[in-house]
Amino acid sequence: MKTFKLPVRVYYEDTDSGGVVYYANYLKFMERARTEWLRSLGYEQDVLREQRNLLFAVRSAALDFKRPARFNDLVDVFSEVTQIGGASVTFSQRVELRERAGLAVSPQALCVGEIKVVSLSAADFRPCPLPKDLVEEFTREH
Amino acid sequence: MKTFKLPVRVYYEDTDSGGVVYYANYLKFMERARTEWLRSLGYEQDVLREQRNLLFAVRSAALDFKRPARFNDLVDVFSEVTQIGGASVTFSQRVELRERAGLAVSPQALCVGEIKVVSLSAADFRPCPLPKDLVEEFTREH
Amino acid sequence: MKTFKLPVRVYYEDTDSGGVVYYANYLKFMERARTEWLRSLGYEQDVLREQRNLLFAVRSAALDFKRPARFNDLVDVFSEVTQIGGASVTFSQRVELRERAGLAVSPQALCVGEIKVVSLSAADFRPCPLPKDLVEEFTREH
Amino acid sequence: MKTFKLPVRVYYEDTDSGGVVYYANYLKFMERARTEWLRSLGYEQDVLREQRNLLFAVRSAALDFKRPARFNDLVDVFSEVTQIGGASVTFSQRVELRERAGLAVSPQALCVGEIKVVSLSAADFRPCPLPKDLVEEFTREH
Repeated sequence: MKTFKLPVRVYYEDTDSGGVVYYANYLKFMERARTEWLRSLGYEQDVLREQRNLLFAVRSAALDFKRPARFNDLVDVFSEVTQIGGASVTFSQRVELRERAGLAVSPQALCVGEIKVVSLSAADFRPCPLPKDLVEEFTREH
Repeated sequence: MKTFKLPVRVYYEDTDSGGVVYYANYLKFMERARTEWLRSLGYEQDVLREQRNLLFAVRSAALDFKRPARFNDLVDVFSEVTQIGGASVTFSQRVELRERAGLAVSPQALCVGEIKVVSLSAADFRPCPLPKDLVEEFTREH
Repeated sequence: MKTFKLPVRVYYEDTDSGGVVYYANYLKFMERARTEWLRSLGYEQDVLREQRNLLFAVRSAALDFKRPARFNDLVDVFSEVTQIGGASVTFSQRVELRERAGLAVSPQALCVGEIKVVSLSAADFRPCPLPKDLVEEFTREH
Repeated sequence: MKTFKLPVRVYYEDTDSGGVVYYANYLKFMERARTEWLRSLGYEQDVLREQRNLLFAVRSAALDFKRPARFNDLVDVFSEVTQIGGASVTFSQRVELRERAGLAVSPQALCVGEIKVVSLSAADFRPCPLPKDLVEEFTREH
């Protein structure tokens, strides 16, 4: 399966008084990347919810914080599907520094994580099987 | 009408890389104070929503940022109702520094704001009149 | 002065359990737009801080919440400089809905605001004059 | 080592449009609990930073999301030190539901996590040994 990349800019809202990106916010960056990956496959999550009663929720997250991103950095968020279960998808994700102070830098890993997402019925929040067309899209060799 | 006071502690999550509380977060502190004020009058907002189809939404906010709060500060958030309309309540709110570096300081205003909240039907998000018992509670001389 | 436009996507991180964008987050969207506008003029804020001892801080904000944005909406954030003082810049900003459920919609205003930003010395956080080259850029007819 | 408990109230700011607490925010709740635990032992983190050049940073986090907390819930956040290294402390943390809709409920686990925190020099952000008095406090049988 192909790796998806989303560039993310660091704003003041993302930082803390340690001078760096607040660690919990890497979860937001990673979610944005998963969302844009889904969109790139043709799936809008509000439409999935309205028309197909399908919702995704994060079931577990394990994050390793290696180096801090700073205010105004440009980072790349990489996502890759590593496992597909009956009602779950597991992602390996990585945030890399790309640009600092307006200048390109040699890429370095800032944060890596494994995120497990489950598919739920939007009506009652119970697990429901991943629809077949999604599984096919997720496993397609691009 | 009486002034309500809520102490709020500043955590890393509230700050930005300028070394101070991220300005948008004063809106969160002020909302916590309005919520605890409502609770002190006997109203739980999840109950209002479930049992009385009532929801509050912020319609406008005007904030003046005077001095910054910093990581680990203890601040007091003051709330006072200044106007009650048919389907709205306007609050005057003020955030004051109380304690820094573990020591009490002479109070100084950090942020002042005027927040207008409207009452909505939880079913369709349309404005609905403020229930009489709430108006009575809001205007009672304590 | 020209109006600057930044598209912003609404993610789960931006919403609240009312089902809409949490109102304080419009301040984040507006700040992203001011930041990208500055960048479009050639100014990186981390560089301004490091090399020119210059920092911007929000001094006041007045927001009017007209209609809610929802999860997965695409909105446009418009920024326009309306006033330039010796050590301040005032912006008129507007958030408009552009796309919902993957479909373009006729634009409608969601939130409008006036934001006043002051220039500070990064060393001591005291007000300092706006540098001339910035004032010239800000007032240039593009 | 004793378990420390911090009650935390869920506000709108903590929720997302799924109707529940946004998962990344459990990291904030857990950090608040670690901070208040440190304070209960007599350590203010702004003082540690200023006077002893000591900073804590999260090095890794693993979270398991079991059941969602909702708007207005009251939860308890439990923290326990499980390991102390030369320049690190590992915590086992758990968020439990305590009160919903203004009523006490039988406690149930919502989120559990293991958080590893490292001690850094505030001057250069390099790892530095945990001071002896802190290690003693952390390992004391209360």
